[in-house]
Amino acid sequence: MNEIKIGLIGFGTIGAGVVKLLRNNASLIEQKTGARVALKWIADLDITTDRGVSTEGIQLTRRVDDLLHDPEVSVVIELIGGYEPARTFVLKAIENGKHVVTANKALLAVHGDEIYAAAREKGVEVLFEASVGGGIPVLSAIKGNLAANRFSTVLGIVNGTCNYILTRMTQEGADFGDVLKSAQALGYAEADPTFDIEGVDTAHKLCLLLSLCFGTKIDLKDVYCEGITSVTSEDVDFAKNFGYRIKLLAIGKLDGDRIEARVHPTMVPIDYPLADVHGVFNAIRLTGDFVGPVMFYGRGAGMDATASAVIGDVMELTRDMLAGGSRRCAPLGFLDENVAALTLKPMGEIVSKYYIRFHAQDRPGVLARIAGSLGKFGISIASMVQSARSEEVVPIVIMTHEAREGDVRQALEEIDAFDVIRERSNFIRIEDNLE
Amino acid sequence: MNEIKIGLIGFGTIGAGVVKLLRNNASLIEQKTGARVALKWIADLDITTDRGVSTEGIQLTRRVDDLLHDPEVSVVIELIGGYEPARTFVLKAIENGKHVVTANKALLAVHGDEIYAAAREKGVEVLFEASVGGGIPVLSAIKGNLAANRFSTVLGIVNGTCNYILTRMTQEGADFGDVLKSAQALGYAEADPTFDIEGVDTAHKLCLLLSLCFGTKIDLKDVYCEGITSVTSEDVDFAKNFGYRIKLLAIGKLDGDRIEARVHPTMVPIDYPLADVHGVFNAIRLTGDFVGPVMFYGRGAGMDATASAVIGDVMELTRDMLAGGSRRCAPLGFLDENVAALTLKPMGEIVSKYYIRFHAQDRPGVLARIAGSLGKFGISIASMVQSARSEEVVPIVIMTHEAREGDVRQALEEIDAFDVIRERSNFIRIEDNLE
Repeated sequence: MNEIKIGLIGFGTIGAGVVKLLRNNASLIEQKTGARVALKWIADLDITTDRGVSTEGIQLTRRVDDLLHDPEVSVVIELIGGYEPARTFVLKAIENGKHVVTANKALLAVHGDEIYAAAREKGVEVLFEASVGGGIPVLSAIKGNLAANRFSTVLGIVNGTCNYILTRMTQEGADFGDVLKSAQALGYAEADPTFDIEGVDTAHKLCLLLSLCFGTKIDLKDVYCEGITSVTSEDVDFAKNFGYRIKLLAIGKLDGDRIEARVHPTMVPIDYPLADVHGVFNAIRLTGDFVGPVMFYGRGAGMDATASAVIGDVMELTRDMLAGGSRRCAPLGFLDENVAALTLKPMGEIVSKYYIRFHAQDRPGVLARIAGSLGKFGISIASMVQSARSEEVVPIVIMTHEAREGDVRQALEEIDAFDVIRERSNFIRIEDNLE
Repeated sequence: MNEIKIGLIGFGTIGAGVVKLLRNNASLIEQKTGARVALKWIADLDITTDRGVSTEGIQLTRRVDDLLHDPEVSVVIELIGGYEPARTFVLKAIENGKHVVTANKALLAVHGDEIYAAAREKGVEVLFEASVGGGIPVLSAIKGNLAANRFSTVLGIVNGTCNYILTRMTQEGADFGDVLKSAQALGYAEADPTFDIEGVDTAHKLCLLLSLCFGTKIDLKDVYCEGITSVTSEDVDFAKNFGYRIKLLAIGKLDGDRIEARVHPTMVPIDYPLADVHGVFNAIRLTGDFVGPVMFYGRGAGMDATASAVIGDVMELTRDMLAGGSRRCAPLGFLDENVAALTLKPMGEIVSKYYIRFHAQDRPGVLARIAGSLGKFGISIASMVQSARSEEVVPIVIMTHEAREGDVRQALEEIDAFDVIRERSNFIRIEDNLE
């Protein structure tokens, strides 16, 4: 029996999932690959706390070098997250001729180029299915059986924390702040939830999806990133009345030779499969020129689902090694020399439908002034609702036809300066025109 | 530049899609694989009809042997469908050391064993992503990144014709016969639709899904197969009122060491993503012990989507060949020697919730008699509706809690013999308990 020895860096939740999977399904892995996949080393600063999984037969160490320098180890799994020291460890593993499997989207979104170049030089592979969509095998699909397609669009619900919060706001009519607090208490949101709720984690994942779909390098700082903190229960209610649900979407679109890369709350029609992705589930929807629209759905996080993706990658590597081939597929699916930068389309130039909410004094002529401003900037109104609250300040909601974002922003600047407008307007982009 | 030469058998709709894709996306394929994928031969009985795609540079022949015996051809694509002569051609291609890509579910469901054994002997690969779910890369996912999971359930909407008919029955309240006629006129159903509407095509696909999920051989004749011809618009209406939609599902479940393999109309809750799979779209939902539930959605048929899966397979083979490896992965994902027969669970022993519709005379005591019979066989009622039609014969619908199918059938036999029952009762199984 062949044996593939691996080293694991990071014994947190996902690390424990990896250990558990390798124990529970060892015989299955053998039946499929013809090899025993043996976890030889676990490196972590804390090697004493019980993680609820047996570490029998595994060498635990505080020194990552123990596994990085072990010539028997052919695959290194990196699960510590963040930029450093993950970057250093991954580069060292590659330098030592080891294949790398990682779930670290932040690392790859920022240092991917350097890591892929090093891997190419050393003839090793870097696999990272677990970095986007947890257990959903979407990256493998883009690189693999969908590879014959030119993609035009990729949309994703890829952050479970945001989707959990938006789902509860929708189902309970609750406020953002209250749901966030409860999500933190339940462990669905971090104590410092910034990366999640401000959309940064989603932007990291979008960078990876774009790289694989379009064979391009995306600079994280060029991705438009707007989180869910400004979504109110009022917006959620209006969305429902118009037949939409609000989701935080990662959106990538190819328009000619320019690319849109944006993360923001988005209204999707209630009868779209994306609208039915609830709680901590994730979904990614791609459109290819031949396959048409295709969607993947599953658990976007969690110990077990993420371990499924990590060990799935390890099994792919095992098959590659046993078949005698190396570097069967480049990290992004495109040969490294064919990865090229694409120009990003500025946000002002994107075209979308918009939901716009104003809070205005309930006076005659207000609607006419708002409509006038929108018309001046070429924004055409699809429908309008003024709530019949018997209060002095009322919400006015306008759904537009397709408009340029730059025009919308200019119009809103003008309207927000009206004396009858009582607080800054809010707008949410709508995606209801998907093929 | 490396070049991989392929031969195509069958120049029908999908064949034309393959030619189109290879022309349109030739440079993309090169950028990803580092090889030119060149279609050298097309074999078809009709080589004169214009398919709307250019065949410049391709040799057309009526003799399949021309490509089967061409030593330059390393991959043969079989797209003629059916058992013979497809079986003979595929076995000859393997015998001559060529890898095979096919979309032929019927062939593999019935002659898979023989074909996989031959491929093993010759050290070539057999790939068939296009055989299930059109362009949806579900088979690749099961064999690939999801491989670390033990699956417990696979459910699929995998026949576009049936889903189109059921969708229109649901949306329009139309009758089966009328929708079928219109589907035939529109080209969504064959002139002889038997294979589709009787569930046989779905059963073929279920055999393949089960083989990959469970590493097992399934005999087509052991799959319980019930088509959609007995679904009435009345059933569709009742389903809607109870919060369900009716879908033709392929269902595979592992229960201990026995397997359920069944195809039948099924009620799924309206808020399940599966319920939102409309028209000719397909979806496959799997549950793995680590990944949990995961769903794939996309176009289940058509020239372009199917070509995406076929050329996706060709690109995988190209990568395998260039990496110097062969037989990187066995056809079913399990090493051939680990594929074993599983025992099928008899339909009488399956447990499900049921929708049961009776047509009975509107007389006092009828409900009591029906309920009494059900109770006698241990079937517990979840809810009941008797339509307030002012006619002598009224429909009575009962939704049951979980019950054994054998008990349900016995109870219905008893009830159908009552003098007040005016026609044979109908029942539809319910899947609303998915994780």
